[in-house]
Amino acid sequence: MADKKMVEEITSMDVDFAQWYTDIVRKAELIEYTSVKGCMAIKPDGYAIWENIQAELDKRFKATGVRNVYMPMFIPESLLEKEKDHVEGFAPEVAWVTHGGLEPLQERMCVRPTSETLFCDFYKNDVHSYRDLPKVYNQWCSVVRWEKETRPFLRSREFLWQEGHTAHATAEEAEERTIQMLNVYADFLEEFLAIPVIKGQKTEKEKFAGAEATYTVEALMHDGKALQSGTSHNFGNGFAKAFDIQFTDKDNTLKHVYQTSWGVTTRLIGAIIMTHGDNEGLVLPPRVAPVQICIIPIQQKKEGVLDKAYELRDKLTQVCRVKVDDTDKTPGWKFSEAEMRGYPLRLEIGPKDIEAGKCVLVRRDTREKIEVSLDEVNVKVPELLETIQKDMLERARKHREEHTYVAKDYDEFKKVFSEKSGFVKAMWCGSRECEDQIKADLSVTSRCMPFEQENISDKCVCCGKPANKMVYWGRAY
Amino acid sequence: MADKKMVEEITSMDVDFAQWYTDIVRKAELIEYTSVKGCMAIKPDGYAIWENIQAELDKRFKATGVRNVYMPMFIPESLLEKEKDHVEGFAPEVAWVTHGGLEPLQERMCVRPTSETLFCDFYKNDVHSYRDLPKVYNQWCSVVRWEKETRPFLRSREFLWQEGHTAHATAEEAEERTIQMLNVYADFLEEFLAIPVIKGQKTEKEKFAGAEATYTVEALMHDGKALQSGTSHNFGNGFAKAFDIQFTDKDNTLKHVYQTSWGVTTRLIGAIIMTHGDNEGLVLPPRVAPVQICIIPIQQKKEGVLDKAYELRDKLTQVCRVKVDDTDKTPGWKFSEAEMRGYPLRLEIGPKDIEAGKCVLVRRDTREKIEVSLDEVNVKVPELLETIQKDMLERARKHREEHTYVAKDYDEFKKVFSEKSGFVKAMWCGSRECEDQIKADLSVTSRCMPFEQENISDKCVCCGKPANKMVYWGRAY
Repeated sequence: MADKKMVEEITSMDVDFAQWYTDIVRKAELIEYTSVKGCMAIKPDGYAIWENIQAELDKRFKATGVRNVYMPMFIPESLLEKEKDHVEGFAPEVAWVTHGGLEPLQERMCVRPTSETLFCDFYKNDVHSYRDLPKVYNQWCSVVRWEKETRPFLRSREFLWQEGHTAHATAEEAEERTIQMLNVYADFLEEFLAIPVIKGQKTEKEKFAGAEATYTVEALMHDGKALQSGTSHNFGNGFAKAFDIQFTDKDNTLKHVYQTSWGVTTRLIGAIIMTHGDNEGLVLPPRVAPVQICIIPIQQKKEGVLDKAYELRDKLTQVCRVKVDDTDKTPGWKFSEAEMRGYPLRLEIGPKDIEAGKCVLVRRDTREKIEVSLDEVNVKVPELLETIQKDMLERARKHREEHTYVAKDYDEFKKVFSEKSGFVKAMWCGSRECEDQIKADLSVTSRCMPFEQENISDKCVCCGKPANKMVYWGRAY
Repeated sequence: MADKKMVEEITSMDVDFAQWYTDIVRKAELIEYTSVKGCMAIKPDGYAIWENIQAELDKRFKATGVRNVYMPMFIPESLLEKEKDHVEGFAPEVAWVTHGGLEPLQERMCVRPTSETLFCDFYKNDVHSYRDLPKVYNQWCSVVRWEKETRPFLRSREFLWQEGHTAHATAEEAEERTIQMLNVYADFLEEFLAIPVIKGQKTEKEKFAGAEATYTVEALMHDGKALQSGTSHNFGNGFAKAFDIQFTDKDNTLKHVYQTSWGVTTRLIGAIIMTHGDNEGLVLPPRVAPVQICIIPIQQKKEGVLDKAYELRDKLTQVCRVKVDDTDKTPGWKFSEAEMRGYPLRLEIGPKDIEAGKCVLVRRDTREKIEVSLDEVNVKVPELLETIQKDMLERARKHREEHTYVAKDYDEFKKVFSEKSGFVKAMWCGSRECEDQIKADLSVTSRCMPFEQENISDKCVCCGKPANKMVYWGRAY
């Protein structure tokens, strides 16, 4: 009974999804709350996931020519105010530094909520000629937004992210880079995190403060809510005009640069939890899992058992990330804990197994048990990890497809959102009024105008006027 | 002549060392000044050095059982005030956040100048039993100290660093960890950055605010000034008592934990510049250099030259970090630029070399030219990089030894510091008064009481009273 205690403490996701989520982040030891309201401490098991995300994304960024830099964390108020839409979007939610040491500052500064203004200020001095372009820079850092309601990973006052900021000689090149980075995010989410996404463009209402166009990758969580998982913005030359970033082009004339920015955050860890987790705890896709297989010795006090477990660990280390749970807890407790922590595979090995020259592998995602000869372990484990990775993506895709609906008129639209939860595909006339109406009626927002358009009808789902844009709608985190 | 322009713009280090340093950080494109006073932008070539430092140190940390975490960047004022010495040390130099969004905060918070208080607050809730110990955590982040005078990398209002924070069951274990991490720093500096260091303990006057003992690795820069390059602190159980961090020990009694912290910063990049740089620019030790060899094609418009350069790059990529300078600048300009940026090796290849099946390698550190057969390049280059790494360490060690003096009495001591610059080894009675006197007379501070003690005399160099501690003294950054 005691073995089950840990598991029993998780709220079932069908009973209370929000509580289930909170239980997992705490019991899988991903975060801890702190004395700093709205800010969390990311614990080793949570931070190790972020380190794997960083390493993989950074590799993919660099393959496209991105170089990392570091800008100051402070933005003087006058700098933040240079681009009108941008300051309106961010000023209400920044933290202000007013004193340095014992003295008041001459000009107050905010802690960066995002760094467009700092990069613009930098590019203004760093870009002179077409030879200096493009600039394709990125930074890994933390940013601060003074949110009223916070949730671990999904919305916190401080969060970790990367922000790419680029400058180009032409509008076409900026648009290409914007889409290129969106594709990097989409591929990364699908291939590494096993999270399928819808790629598309945000509406005017939902786009980033100061952008000409915002593109997004949208994922569907287990509870049918949408999660914006990464965004890529094309700024045109609006920021360049506000900050006076000009270069001498090949034709010897002065021109403004065209800019982009793009980012993903620790929110991705929330996406992993809510896409793959179950009532036993976290389920980590093998590629991002800090521990891919956990070896649990059975009757570990019997002679030879622990030795064999360590031998297997040393062998498996060559092909995957492995740990041995050699604590003095019971095997049942260890099983529960391995499930809670989401290790993709566990390996059970006891005296009888050793005698028979085999061990038992248990998949976290399906709980399937597989007997494997000890000689074959180093072949089978990597194969199984690949299978799990693929199956998890397919399962998530199937879940999304089963929770994606179509609505042709407003009655249908309202019916779906009152009875089900998920994405609804519906036509939209392009007016802000319809978006506002839908939000007021149903707390539903436009997630994106997907690149893959379908012709569902020729009328706006809200007002009935002519419409030729299909939009994904949903309730969002 | 134009080829030389770039180089001529560097101030000679003999004329003005400070200006020479500033010229290098700017012209090697490591940093740029920003609109945020006292904060710098770290440019791609500078940040790439930090990325290599991070990767190598992180690997060495993890090999000793360190796990990475992330704590909030803000510290509520009441938390900062819990440990008396600590708050006195830091409160005068922190940045204060007083407003979140449009509203004043109930309690103001500082941006972390260091995170002892946050880790204590965390451990207080996370440590219950001896089974939870030790905690060996680290974070990579930026911190803020409101310095009045700033210099790129050496002293800026915001800087990047890592801060390790550990908690242990016994005082012995904490002391062991403190020394262990100091040794990690010393080995890293010598093996990776080719910077030899003196390991030792700080005096009471120079130790960290709140520590029982502070250990340091001290390096000597080209101008004979000392640079504190890494510190490791043993807190005993002082913070644990202030923050009430207790655990139930094996004997079932409640005890306070013993703690340590240790850190290095982007200051290490300043140490690299001032240890290895010369009047042509930066000189990077091969192991930390983002580009280890730069291929410069001669007469690159002649058929086959660029192709051969790319072929060599593709081949060399297997054994080192390589780039081709295929811009339309002249070879002379490219040579100067390669020198300025500190690439350990450059490879010159032109039509005649190709015909003869060879190329020319030029060492950045000695400017020695070495003809190498194209067939042997992939063997010779890694060998040469290793030789350069070793030679750079030896050269730095020789420089330090030639600038380390001994003084037996105060006249000698004053004479050395008025005529030379470097380390002076001298005996000290242990009194704060003598340290204060020496600082007032000569602007010289105690760098450390080295682990390797020598018996220079039996009298304090300042007051002449009995002394049994040898101290390294110096002018410091």
